[in-house]
Amino acid sequence: MVVIPDIEALNQAAERINPYVHNTPVLQSSSINQLCEAKVFLKCENFQRMGAFKMRGATNAILQLTDEERDKGVVTHSSGNFAQALSLAARSLKTKAFIVMPNNAPAVKVAAVKGYGADIIMCEPTLEARERTSLEIQKKTGATFIHPSNDMNVILGQGTAAMELINEVGKLDVLITPVGGGGLLAGTALAVHHYLPDAETIAGEPFGADDAYHSLKTGQIQPCINPNTIADGLKTQLGDQNFPIIQQYVRQIIRVEESEIVEAMRYIWERMKIIIEPSSAVAVAALFKRKEEFKNKNIGIIISGGNVDLEKLPF
Amino acid sequence: MVVIPDIEALNQAAERINPYVHNTPVLQSSSINQLCEAKVFLKCENFQRMGAFKMRGATNAILQLTDEERDKGVVTHSSGNFAQALSLAARSLKTKAFIVMPNNAPAVKVAAVKGYGADIIMCEPTLEARERTSLEIQKKTGATFIHPSNDMNVILGQGTAAMELINEVGKLDVLITPVGGGGLLAGTALAVHHYLPDAETIAGEPFGADDAYHSLKTGQIQPCINPNTIADGLKTQLGDQNFPIIQQYVRQIIRVEESEIVEAMRYIWERMKIIIEPSSAVAVAALFKRKEEFKNKNIGIIISGGNVDLEKLPF
Repeated sequence: MVVIPDIEALNQAAERINPYVHNTPVLQSSSINQLCEAKVFLKCENFQRMGAFKMRGATNAILQLTDEERDKGVVTHSSGNFAQALSLAARSLKTKAFIVMPNNAPAVKVAAVKGYGADIIMCEPTLEARERTSLEIQKKTGATFIHPSNDMNVILGQGTAAMELINEVGKLDVLITPVGGGGLLAGTALAVHHYLPDAETIAGEPFGADDAYHSLKTGQIQPCINPNTIADGLKTQLGDQNFPIIQQYVRQIIRVEESEIVEAMRYIWERMKIIIEPSSAVAVAALFKRKEEFKNKNIGIIISGGNVDLEKLPF
Repeated sequence: MVVIPDIEALNQAAERINPYVHNTPVLQSSSINQLCEAKVFLKCENFQRMGAFKMRGATNAILQLTDEERDKGVVTHSSGNFAQALSLAARSLKTKAFIVMPNNAPAVKVAAVKGYGADIIMCEPTLEARERTSLEIQKKTGATFIHPSNDMNVILGQGTAAMELINEVGKLDVLITPVGGGGLLAGTALAVHHYLPDAETIAGEPFGADDAYHSLKTGQIQPCINPNTIADGLKTQLGDQNFPIIQQYVRQIIRVEESEIVEAMRYIWERMKIIIEPSSAVAVAALFKRKEEFKNKNIGIIISGGNVDLEKLPF
């Protein structure tokens, strides 16, 4: 049974991580507003430290450790933004990070994690191998395992992006995030519930990795089997910590096609001159797809990050 | 004999265009500051309307026309940002724009100009044909010709970007711009001369189109013959209106290799998550190339624009 955090828990998380993360800018675009006949506010976590919102959750999780635990370090398995986030947060907070990465992880991502000073442990590219290797590291070093999305401190940290957006813009009718592992979505839903209870939290998800959509529909966490999407940050499944929050506070998950993701990404790059990653474009694509539904509303979108491999662009 | 505009002329230009252009944000990056051991301020004209500083000069030039002239419209020849700028400025100011474009101009650029409601007249892709066609349009329609860079109202308009940067940041030691036709460089040099007389104005220029460098060296405007650079906005030469200003107030032009331009562009895209065009990267590359010289200084860079063809990226 998950106890849903109260407003105080969110306030404290925001205060706790405040010295270590950016209060990122909120941008608007007259093109988007015209296209949607709505007011759209983009919370630009692509401008966050290390380029993604994951910095928030990682920082909050480390700051909740005891001194003893922090001496021993933290461990996670990830080949994506959370690996970098935990590495950089660990460095900022003077603790040690052990990152378990699949041996087929792109060299640029390995280099980025190394650049933040983390210890990298390679393993076979299966979930089983990643979990086993993480466990071995925990046993060997005493490091605390921090899950990228299914950890309440991580969820609370991610929720601070929506909190800042609400503080800055005030009255929003809808908040949209992408959904992958569920940390950002659950954190955002929590923030909306506590700070703007009349607003709705909605997620965008690729058809090629629509496990969260089916989880919400069936009432059971569905695995993300053979995901096939350009939004590589969303190829993960919900967990027992974030699912109850999502079930309670998320109204709908809008699924989008790959072509819609690329089109939305291109639109933002070309019109706004900012770099957003495919996962962020999923939330924008969800808005564009249902713009009739959102007409005349005030809409916040969490632009989750801007880490793309410039060698592998979809244009 | 060119009369160099006084501070009042700049103040008036700024006031005149203020309702029609964005006061663009000034961004900093801890990565760049660390790399250069300096404080670097990016004036982000990539976030300007239509994606480039050229909106400023085009707006100022149209606003200086008499009512009678405005009734007849404006004409220019350009296949780049100025074509879009004049088209959008004309639409905002309810006048007509005739744009002479070479018949080998990229379809996306033609579409953009058309999207802003301008009349497009195609001609052979030679300077002679472009000038002749422009003249024909002037005669036929009575429209006023506005040169993209060699027009004092355009130069004054472009100078307002540096003026805003100086207003916002205060004490800068150096301002860097790219140089192509010389409008932005001359306008920036004017602003620095009037508002921050102890600071230096410096330009970056590609080796593959280094006519401004040779013009400054020889004291004579040099043509830009067979330019070969990714910075396609810089394939033009100085003119008799901007050259005297550049001669008087620009200390040096730093030339950069193509690889340095691409590297600087990639650096900004990856670290700052903003899209800058190759011409803007030329100014950044000039800073990076001579960073020893700029150590411990406060440096302003005019990020000239963000219009890139995503189908033709150098990465």
